[in-house]
Order: sequence, then C-alpha cells, then structure tokens
Amino acid sequence: MKRFLNSRETLVTESLDGFLRSPAGKNLYRLDGYPDIRVILRSDWDKKTGKVAILSGGGSGHEPAHAGFVGEGMLTGAICGALFASPGIDAILSAILAVTGDAGCLLIIKNYTGDRLNFNLAAEQARGMGLKVETILIGDDIALGERKHARALAGTVFMHKVAGYLSEEGKDLKTISNSLKKASEKVYSIGLALSDSYAYEDNFKTRLDDKSAELGLGIHSEPGAETIPMATADKLMKKAADALESKLPSGKHNYALMLNNLGTVPIIEATLLLESFAKTSLSKQIRLVTGPAHFLTSLDMNGFSLSVIHLDKEIETALLAPAAPLAWNGFSSWKNITIKAAPKLPEVFIEPPSKNPELRKMIERGIAALKENENSLNLIDAKVGDGDAGSTFADTARILEQELDHLPLKEPKALIQTVGRLLSRHSGGSSGALLSILFSVAGNSEKKKWQDALMEGVGAMQEYGGASLGDRTMLDAIIPAITALKEGKSLSDATQAARAGADATAKMKKASAGRSSYVPESHLKNIPDPGAEAIALLCEAITSKGI
Amino acid sequence: MKRFLNSRETLVTESLDGFLRSPAGKNLYRLDGYPDIRVILRSDWDKKTGKVAILSGGGSGHEPAHAGFVGEGMLTGAICGALFASPGIDAILSAILAVTGDAGCLLIIKNYTGDRLNFNLAAEQARGMGLKVETILIGDDIALGERKHARALAGTVFMHKVAGYLSEEGKDLKTISNSLKKASEKVYSIGLALSDSYAYEDNFKTRLDDKSAELGLGIHSEPGAETIPMATADKLMKKAADALESKLPSGKHNYALMLNNLGTVPIIEATLLLESFAKTSLSKQIRLVTGPAHFLTSLDMNGFSLSVIHLDKEIETALLAPAAPLAWNGFSSWKNITIKAAPKLPEVFIEPPSKNPELRKMIERGIAALKENENSLNLIDAKVGDGDAGSTFADTARILEQELDHLPLKEPKALIQTVGRLLSRHSGGSSGALLSILFSVAGNSEKKKWQDALMEGVGAMQEYGGASLGDRTMLDAIIPAITALKEGKSLSDATQAARAGADATAKMKKASAGRSSYVPESHLKNIPDPGAEAIALLCEAITSKGI
Repeated sequence: MKRFLNSRETLVTESLDGFLRSPAGKNLYRLDGYPDIRVILRSDWDKKTGKVAILSGGGSGHEPAHAGFVGEGMLTGAICGALFASPGIDAILSAILAVTGDAGCLLIIKNYTGDRLNFNLAAEQARGMGLKVETILIGDDIALGERKHARALAGTVFMHKVAGYLSEEGKDLKTISNSLKKASEKVYSIGLALSDSYAYEDNFKTRLDDKSAELGLGIHSEPGAETIPMATADKLMKKAADALESKLPSGKHNYALMLNNLGTVPIIEATLLLESFAKTSLSKQIRLVTGPAHFLTSLDMNGFSLSVIHLDKEIETALLAPAAPLAWNGFSSWKNITIKAAPKLPEVFIEPPSKNPELRKMIERGIAALKENENSLNLIDAKVGDGDAGSTFADTARILEQELDHLPLKEPKALIQTVGRLLSRHSGGSSGALLSILFSVAGNSEKKKWQDALMEGVGAMQEYGGASLGDRTMLDAIIPAITALKEGKSLSDATQAARAGADATAKMKKASAGRSSYVPESHLKNIPDPGAEAIALLCEAITSKGI
Repeated sequence: MKRFLNSRETLVTESLDGFLRSPAGKNLYRLDGYPDIRVILRSDWDKKTGKVAILSGGGSGHEPAHAGFVGEGMLTGAICGALFASPGIDAILSAILAVTGDAGCLLIIKNYTGDRLNFNLAAEQARGMGLKVETILIGDDIALGERKHARALAGTVFMHKVAGYLSEEGKDLKTISNSLKKASEKVYSIGLALSDSYAYEDNFKTRLDDKSAELGLGIHSEPGAETIPMATADKLMKKAADALESKLPSGKHNYALMLNNLGTVPIIEATLLLESFAKTSLSKQIRLVTGPAHFLTSLDMNGFSLSVIHLDKEIETALLAPAAPLAWNGFSSWKNITIKAAPKLPEVFIEPPSKNPELRKMIERGIAALKENENSLNLIDAKVGDGDAGSTFADTARILEQELDHLPLKEPKALIQTVGRLLSRHSGGSSGALLSILFSVAGNSEKKKWQDALMEGVGAMQEYGGASLGDRTMLDAIIPAITALKEGKSLSDATQAARAGADATAKMKKASAGRSSYVPESHLKNIPDPGAEAIALLCEAITSKGI
C-alpha cells in the first residue's frame, strides 16, 4: 500500500499542523504538548462570555472529525487521540481547563470503551476542581442490535451542530445537556463499504474479496454486521437505506439526512450515491440533506454511511443555523431537481435553399471524391494515425450530400455559414470540428470577399487547432490553396497549390500537431498526411471537368 | 475494481442529479436534454443585469469541477462532457444562449484538443447569432516543457475565481478577458500521484508498481513526465515543489497556493501534505493558501497537485473575495501555527502526606499480592482475554508503591481522591481507568461516609464501563465487597463477599462486557474473570494478618 506518510508515529501531529495551516484552521490554535496533548481550540473563544464550552474528540483517522468541526456554531475544541485510539486523560483535562468558564462545559463522547472511560475520568477530575462538566454519550449505529451498546458513527456530527447552536444561543449547561440527550436518541446511522480501511499495518490484507461488500461496519474497520454481495450503486444504497428505515420509529416522520463519505469514494460516485438514495423508500421521509461530503471518515475506506436525525423544531433550527467550520456543508431542502428547457438552438438553414447548378456540380464532385477515397485514406492514416481519417472525411461528405437540396447555393456567405453549422451539429472527430471552424468563422467574417473570409477561417483553425503550416496537417494543403485564391489566382491554381502542399507533407520529418505527433519519425517517411491528401483530392475533384 | 456505479453510461448524469440534490446544488438548475446536454446553471442569474456570464466545463471525472464551482462569485454555468470527453457543441451553445445578455459571455477553456475545438466552435456560432463571446485558454501544467502546449490542471479553478469576481464587480467583457489573459499566464501547476486513475475500463491494470510514483502527470491519467521512486511524504512533496519552483520566474515573488486532492488521498494524509509543503523552499514565496481539498480531480487517483498563481493586487483581491460555491474553500494567510501553553494540570497530591501505619500495612499487603499474582492472573487472562490483566493490575500496584510516602493516609477523602488522580495520570488499559473512575468519583462525592462514596464510585464504573453485576467483570467482586461495607459489615465479611463473587464468575456462561465478551462461551467454562479474581486476591491480602 503506497501512502503519503513520513511515519505512522508522526502522522497525526503532522496532519493536525497541516490542518492548522489550511483555511480550515484559520481561527484555531493548538495547545502545546505534542504528542500527548493534541488539542485544537477556537482562537475566538472567550470563556468569560458566559457561553457553555462544547468539546468532543476521540481517536484520529476520522478526519475532518473532530478538529474540522471546531469553530463558531459547533465545537469549542477537539481532543485528538492517536490513530484509532482514545486521547489520554491529561489531554482531555487540558482542553476542559482551557475553555471552561462559569457556564461550564459539555463533552460529546463517542461510545467506545476508551473514549467513554477517559472522557468521563477527565470530566470527573474537572468536577473535582470545581468546574461544571456534563457528558453526553453518542451511539447512533443501528447495525449491532441493542441500542444501548450502539457504537458512534457520523451521526455524532449532528450532535456537534445541535450543541454548538444551543451554546451560541446562550443556553445554560443543564438545558443544553438535556436537549442533547433527547436529540442523541433520535439519531440513527449505518455504514456500507466496499473495502475495509488500511491503518498503516505491516502486511495488511483486506478481508473483502472482489465480490463482497459489508453492511453495518464500524469506523475502525471492525467487521460489518453482514457481508453482502457486490451490486450496483442503486442496489447497495437500497440495502443500506432499507436497513436504516427498518430501525426507525414506525409511521412517517421528518428526518434530516447526512450522506457521509467514509474515505475514498471518488467525488463523482459520492454524488451518484445521493441520486441512488433518492430512489429509496426512506427518501420519502427526508426533509433536509447534507453531503455527500467527508464528515467522519475511516481513513481510506471506500464506503459511505447514512445518518438520519428525527426532526423537531429545535433540532431543525439548530441544523439550519450557520456555522463557521469549513467541513460543515450546511443543509438544503430535500426536493426535486429544477430542470428548465434548453434554449432553442439556431436553425442550421438560415436562408431558403437556392440554386446554382455549376457550384452544385463542383460540390457533388467533391463529395464523390471523398467517398471514393474513404478506404485509401484510411489505409494511409493507419500508418501514421489511428486509421479513420478517410471515414471522417467521407462522413462529412455524406452529411453535405444529404442536405444538398437545402443549401443556399446562390449566397456565398450564407452557404459558408450553413456548412459551418451543419458540420458542427454532426461533427465527428477533430477534423470535422476543424472544418466546421473554418466555415463558421468565415461565415461570421465581416470581410467582403469570400476568399478573405475563408482566410480568416483558416486563421481560426490554426489558433484553435494549435497547428501551423509545416506541422504535417491538412493545413499544409488548405493554406496554399486559399492563399492562391486570396491572391486572385484561379481555382485550378489553388488546386495545384493544395496538391503540392499535400505532397510536401510526405517529406516532413516530424508532425508537430494532430495525431501523427505521437508517431515516431521513422514511420512517417514518404507517407503524406491523410488530412492534407484528402483536401488535395477534394480540390482536384472540384476543379476537374468530370461528371 | 469495486465501485459505486450503475453503469458507465449513466454515471455522469446520475452524478450530476445527485449533485443538484445536495446542498452544493442549492441555487442551481440544469437544462433539459440529458444525455447530450449536461449543463448546470445558476438559478440566481439574470442575464439582464448587465454582468458578464462566465462559463467553463470539459470532460467529467474531475469533480467538483466544473459544476461545483457554479455560483455567485465564480461560474455562471458549467457544461459537462462524458467521462474524460469534451461536451458537444450543442451543449456549449445551449449554455451560452441560456446565460448571455448584452454584457456578453466569457468561456474558460482547458487546453485539450476536444475542448478547444468544441468551445471555440460554439463561441463562433454564438457570435454568428450576434452575441458577444470571448474565450480564454488555460494551460498551467509545467510538466511537459513548452508553455504554449501546456495542459490545463487545477490552476483553472483560480481562473474561475478571478473571472467570477470581475464579473460580480461589473467589469465589461473586454476588461475581464484582458485581465484573465494576463492572469492565466501567471498560473503554474504540477501533479504527483501514487496511482493512475481507473476510468471504469474493463480489465484495468495500473501501470505503477509498488515502488513507483509519477511526477507531472495529466488529469486523464496520461503518463507522468517522470516516474520517480516511492518515498516519504516529505520527499515526494519536495520533489513536486522543487519542480514547480524551477519553472517560476526568477527572483522572489508572492504566490497563492492551491493544494488539490486528485481523488482518493485520505483526508488525514492530505493535511499532512500541506505540512510537508511547509518544509519546502517554495513555501517561502507563498502568501495565501487554499486546500487541501478536492478542486479538480482525476476520478480515484491517489495523488495531489500544486498550483500557484503569481499575485498582483487585482488577483489577490479576486481570490480573497467571497464566493458562493461550497467546493470553494477560500484562502487563508500563509503563516505559522499558533501554539499556546497548555493549562497547568491539577496537582495529584492535594493534601500533604500523612501517616496511618495500620492502613499503610494493609495497602502494602495489597500491593504485594497484586505483584505476586501478576503471572498467574496473566495466565488466566490468556484463556479468556488478551493475557495482560495480571500485568495491568501489577502496574497499578507499582504506581501506588512508588508514591506510598506521598499519600495522605490519614484523610480518607483526600486519599481516595489522590489515588483516583494518580491512576488516571498513569492509567494503562481499561481496568486502570475503571479503578481510577471508582476512586475519582468517590473522592468527589458529597456523601459523608467513605463507604457510601465508594458505592457512588462503583455506580460510575458501571455507567462509564457499561457493565453490571453478573457481566463477568471485576464488578462481580467489587460490588459485593462494597455492598457489605456499606451495610456496616466488617472488612473480612467484605473480603468473603469479594471471593464468593469472583468464584461465581467461573460459572457464568457469557461475558456481556469487557474483553471476554468476544470469546466463545465454551472457552469460559470454569475459568474465573481475571479482574474479579484480582480484586478478591487484593481484598484477601488486605484483611490477612500477614507481613
């Protein structure tokens, strides 16, 4: 397992210092005393203001919890243990002493033996020193049966928010403690993961094979209550949501949902999971949502947890109140997505069709040439590119062929513009897009002569495509041809120039743009660029007297 | 590779819908037209207000970019392509038409061929319809030599912020476009990863072995410019920061830093990486910092990128201005961490030592018994627990032995309190913590009789430890003994009660708390709980007439 690590021993303190340097740590400081004392506190906290201090903490490896939730409106401070291990009593007591004034202090404790013992011991000692300290034990996991022994999962963060809000409101310790006790009984969580987490152990082996996932697992990689078969995101989410719903009070109620990324779910999949949740039966009872986001993680676990809290007026107000911590994502109402009609796209055919038999014949000859040479151009491209150049040009020709009757053949400017739009609407591959740019820009040009407008289009092709004359692309045929036209030369002069340009590409040693730029020089020898060759063939067909 | 997925084809649209349901999508909507049109726009945007619309986008798989940066102060909208593929021209044109008023629209384009062609084509068509549209091409990657061909990395998000700020300020299109052109030349980025990303390909194989990392790689898992040996976080970060610094203008300047999580770096490691960065030479030129956070990712890539932008007054003001998108983390000043002295912890010894020869002898006998039985208790524990119960009790005994001369042996309440503090300061394992709770709570008790105070301590042990009488823990010896004392019985009656309680544990079938609760019932048969046995031995030693 490759990881960004200096040593397992220094991971937590180095990580906390990095956190303090980041925007998330802007208004925070730490107590001196690494490594035993890893305590993060609010710089903007004054224990003399009469507000109740709210502390939480526990083992590290659950970031952003707990330090990430320190800030106005949530925690006054966090006490961080070693990886997956409770902080020591001295550290907890130091935090209590640092923030507790006459209003007292509430400790939010996750229900794990070490945390329960150490936080309570520290509280007891602080009481022995005359401080008012209350504790609240959180156990929101519904996976292991009896509620009383439940472990704490991400639902703990709801408690940070509710307690922080009540403290900011100036409620007294007893009131906050009572409210939080009630609120803590209304939180329900469950986790589902595709991997257990790697806590930097030597010779780590995952216990999950490629066909299995786990439901109801702990945040320290404790085995899940159930091993379930791997399935689609929708099915896995349904499994978790149904399990959670089965443990909720009967009847329909209003809940707030937290979708927690347990570690390494890619962001695109995390938001997908919220959409999967929207298809579950439980979603019908959801009124507020936060996440997907990292709230309380388990190192690199590839999984998520769902937490819901049964809303009453006080809890809803508390959850919706603003809070300073960056890791807090806020809530939004659970509602349908807003979808608005897309604007009407411009018509491809801006002018009525018009006739120009001579031009039509020229175009028809060009179309025929590109279709006839589809295979031979593909063969050339197979040697220096990805073998589809002939087909791309033939496809473009077929699009024009289909729409020949609708083209304004008599109006050069409108014709050019229409061809640009036609190709962009159906463009396949870069060469189609490039030709569309040529015609679109020429069509929008303010130049009076169509030759000058085309030259402006060629400029845009170079700018957007990133290639220039001599780079072994179709520009090596197009630029000489249009230059000839711009200089007032005849179509057949232009054709000769295109042919000479295309032939010259066979002698060019290096491709500087386009797909041939990835091909070794030796492979390019004596082979023309298929794009330039296509343009030369097209010009030759247009000026020929055939058909 | 197990992933949260329904199908590769539906991933992007399902994920966008999930995003819109989340708090991050609160003020956003999408245009109709899935799957071709995947356009996310601001609900609070009115194209008649005279502000310039700012659009960006590109292939998906880079979440939260680009939709995550749509909101007041940043993008007006995002056009999302399929996974790692540019959005089509129709989608881009739809977005332009939906948001562009008289003030015009700026497209921020990442320098990849598909994006460059399609965004420019759409811009050209919008111009053909009479709209004012400008484009800016971003190429901030310093890994591949020539600046002009540079790819776009996370530095693009700086551009979203600067453009969004200028738009909110009411600047006109030309001004914004000129400012952004200048700003885009001041952005420099580089990526480093331990894994390439898995884009849901069949038979995916990583190209990186366990000993290699890559420097200068692309966000579509294009191979890195250099394969480097795996190393510590500090060394890897130095490699990336040094490479970046070598491409910056000479001399010392002021830069803003973005530390971007490329996908699946666990949060604890991501903040560690910022601390590693603080040790590099480049850090001396940093004035502002954002991240670590997910800005522009590459699916599940386990890596990071560094982006810096050379600050001038306008850029600094733009970066520091508030912005609505949740994915925007804001900046903080790059400065030293604030560390404050930890509060002085309470003295363990609150009363001066005092003598009580009889009690001292009892304690000495207890200490001797726990030391003598260290091995035998460990052996019992090896059968039903983790084999260290004897050592934990012996350690506790040794702490008391060391401090015997400092104890206030004449003052029962102070003695109990002091023992509580002593044990908590040195506590090893749960049993040490539990005994500390017993004495701490008893010491803080307001009960007049020390027997009643001890019973209150026992109550706390049960509450915090989660065990009750009959759960096969040391409580099965402690509770009967203290109950006897509370009832006014003699020390030797209490000892008999403890012994009977300890012996009874050997007949208990199931452990409901403590470490033995993980052991199968058949292993427990006829073996007493080592904690209860230790308490019985302790009581017997105290009341014996030995020494």
